[in-house]
Amino acid sequence: MQTPAQNAQLALLLEVAGTPKPGNVDRHRDLTDLRFEHFLAGAVGAQRGLEMAQNGAAVGPSFEQAVAEMADQGGGNTQFGALLLLVPLVRAARDDLTKPVVEGVVEGTTVADAAAFYRAFEHVDVFVSDPPTELDDLDVRRGSEAIPAIEDRGLTLFDILERGVPGDDVAREWVTGFERSFAAANQLADANGALSERTASVFLSLLGDRPDTLVAKRSGEAIAAEVTDRAAALADRNAVQTDRAAVDAFADELVEHGINPGTTADVTAAGLFIALEHDILEI
Amino acid sequence: MQTPAQNAQLALLLEVAGTPKPGNVDRHRDLTDLRFEHFLAGAVGAQRGLEMAQNGAAVGPSFEQAVAEMADQGGGNTQFGALLLLVPLVRAARDDLTKPVVEGVVEGTTVADAAAFYRAFEHVDVFVSDPPTELDDLDVRRGSEAIPAIEDRGLTLFDILERGVPGDDVAREWVTGFERSFAAANQLADANGALSERTASVFLSLLGDRPDTLVAKRSGEAIAAEVTDRAAALADRNAVQTDRAAVDAFADELVEHGINPGTTADVTAAGLFIALEHDILEI
Repeated sequence: MQTPAQNAQLALLLEVAGTPKPGNVDRHRDLTDLRFEHFLAGAVGAQRGLEMAQNGAAVGPSFEQAVAEMADQGGGNTQFGALLLLVPLVRAARDDLTKPVVEGVVEGTTVADAAAFYRAFEHVDVFVSDPPTELDDLDVRRGSEAIPAIEDRGLTLFDILERGVPGDDVAREWVTGFERSFAAANQLADANGALSERTASVFLSLLGDRPDTLVAKRSGEAIAAEVTDRAAALADRNAVQTDRAAVDAFADELVEHGINPGTTADVTAAGLFIALEHDILEI
Repeated sequence: MQTPAQNAQLALLLEVAGTPKPGNVDRHRDLTDLRFEHFLAGAVGAQRGLEMAQNGAAVGPSFEQAVAEMADQGGGNTQFGALLLLVPLVRAARDDLTKPVVEGVVEGTTVADAAAFYRAFEHVDVFVSDPPTELDDLDVRRGSEAIPAIEDRGLTLFDILERGVPGDDVAREWVTGFERSFAAANQLADANGALSERTASVFLSLLGDRPDTLVAKRSGEAIAAEVTDRAAALADRNAVQTDRAAVDAFADELVEHGINPGTTADVTAAGLFIALEHDILEI
């Protein structure tokens, strides 16, 4: 029986092993500067932060620790978004991994958690969009320099992430009781085939369900919408199992255009964790 | 900076990710009942036992703990031999990861360590040959039932493994100061290409260097010698980099004949760990 921190680490590993996951690093694909082994090292590095959450430490400091050590490899940001989902889920798993409990965890975050979240951005380059002018002093890219403004306004980490919705579907999980993550867990349990294919199927289905917010930020909403439509068409006909060549071609095309649906991978990792914790995914 | 236990876990992950590793599960190959995800779960499961060694616990109990939790997945024995190398190496890394220190660790093992080693066989099916008749009461397949005989004879874990040489090249590492593991670490550092290829090159070179003892036990010494000759020919012309098709064809053939050079993979994992600890392998 793995601990919640171990299941979270295993979820990170199973996520990157899932293939084919169009646009992302997976068991059968490296990107130019972002390779499979960076994700392996990132998952191992995240351990201490995940254990902090498991042992009852606050969400913000646990997340900051996990990110700092996840980033101690040459690929840069591998699992920032995934950890922002996994840390509160691991914290909830101390008690009971249900929507109400994880809602309690995220709604209970504090201004200190928000400060730690801002510090986490100093450990790794995370792709973010320009904030609206009135929120400029809260720009996460300011890192710890933004902390006085956070404290002045008395903003908790939940408040910060709430301001990220719409536009960030990791933040959206925080304010919807991890709706898509819990749904993904059930989908993983119900899917057919080898685990790496099931992971890929659920990834594709999530990508077809809502435009990936990292793709929208990087490549624009029109591209993100098109990627979603195409993913939905593939997911509808269960192409991971029935027409692998079509999924591989879609994957090649996304990589060629530098389209990397990272948010969808984050939610997939969260779904894997929930499925492992709920013992509905056998390995 | 990862801890020794984390580096050991990462070494297990990098080993299985190395490809093409003829005959073994790797990033691009599953066997029928032994899949990539079993190795991921095995590496995560081994964590607590590796941490015990790192924190100064004795080799035997640390190994037993690592094996018990490594085996908590559906693939069976994924990393028994690798852990038998990694646990004393992690224990040595507390002080200094050099040949004399690790020799001190293994030579300092006790009868209690031997007992824990025998108990480890109760957690997982490990392929072993019949022992000579005069050693029948020490057959590891007896598990804890063999412990009284061990205690009667006052055999330490080092004594037990010494009796496994020749015929078991994991045991051989214990009595040679982890000679091939240290050499593999330097080879990994000197090799060219992506890390998964470097791992594969070193694996092939180790396989060409000495017949794999797991292959010898399962398929006979003639087959093991032939596999070694062919691996040596491929390694000599650096085929992982210069003629991938030849390595892939060799891999297909080994899999077809159920030939699984597991001992060579164990030494590769030990080499990866040493290279990570010595900071001569960047990720």
